[in-house]
Amino acid sequence: MTELDDFLARHIPLTRALGVRVARCDAAGLVLAAPLAPNVNDKGTGFAGALASIVTLTGWALTRDTLLGHGEPDALVVIAHSGIDYLRPVRTDFEAVCARPAPAAVDAFVAAYRARGKARWTLEVHIDAGGLPAVRFKGQYAAWRPLEP
Amino acid sequence: MTELDDFLARHIPLTRALGVRVARCDAAGLVLAAPLAPNVNDKGTGFAGALASIVTLTGWALTRDTLLGHGEPDALVVIAHSGIDYLRPVRTDFEAVCARPAPAAVDAFVAAYRARGKARWTLEVHIDAGGLPAVRFKGQYAAWRPLEP
Repeated sequence: MTELDDFLARHIPLTRALGVRVARCDAAGLVLAAPLAPNVNDKGTGFAGALASIVTLTGWALTRDTLLGHGEPDALVVIAHSGIDYLRPVRTDFEAVCARPAPAAVDAFVAAYRARGKARWTLEVHIDAGGLPAVRFKGQYAAWRPLEP
Repeated sequence: MTELDDFLARHIPLTRALGVRVARCDAAGLVLAAPLAPNVNDKGTGFAGALASIVTLTGWALTRDTLLGHGEPDALVVIAHSGIDYLRPVRTDFEAVCARPAPAAVDAFVAAYRARGKARWTLEVHIDAGGLPAVRFKGQYAAWRPLEP
């Protein structure tokens, strides 16, 4: 279990019901895996509400990971806007994949956070099914420096 | 418990974890209510992934209710696209509200479904917090007549 798995289980109870776990978090990006069974709909395929929840979480997790990795563990990360296309049904256990932005974009995001105490960026997350895109998500995330206590 | 509550509990297991129930379904629209406790994030406010799930479900439920109410219980209803704005934190139990479209729009949707075996429409759902908009959602839903067995 990674630090992020532990954080999600402790602080975001719905993630236990979703059954998500961190499948990968490295230089390429962050991948959350989930089983189909707790996330099915009435048609026996992935419930759009569960898929939406998991892709939203994946972009949030990559944003948090980026700030942690740059020595900014206190940043508050929230989503401001999302757009989701549902392209085909998900019929098996699945993964939500968020590629890490290019180093220049990461540096600009972290620099803005440090300089102004706030920063925004847009991330893409996808879920494939049978090798074809099933869910395409774009989310704009904001990070804020918490107010002094 | 309404027919829809029973349907959700039986067929979409995540709805039990979300704690959603039908608060209202009438000529004005459809409202799903949910407690904050199972849907919190690390900041103690509504987890965006849970809010996204519930607003997605609310528009789906109003589409299903519309077709049921017009004697079309077999239609398959899916979401094709959504856009969500997260405007402020949700700090209490909450409701997702989907207004019923004007009668002419309902009639056109049902007529398209009957004539072509498929129809699409866009619905708006919102969650307020403290009397102000907290989540604004637009979702495009599609209905299909199932293939003959």
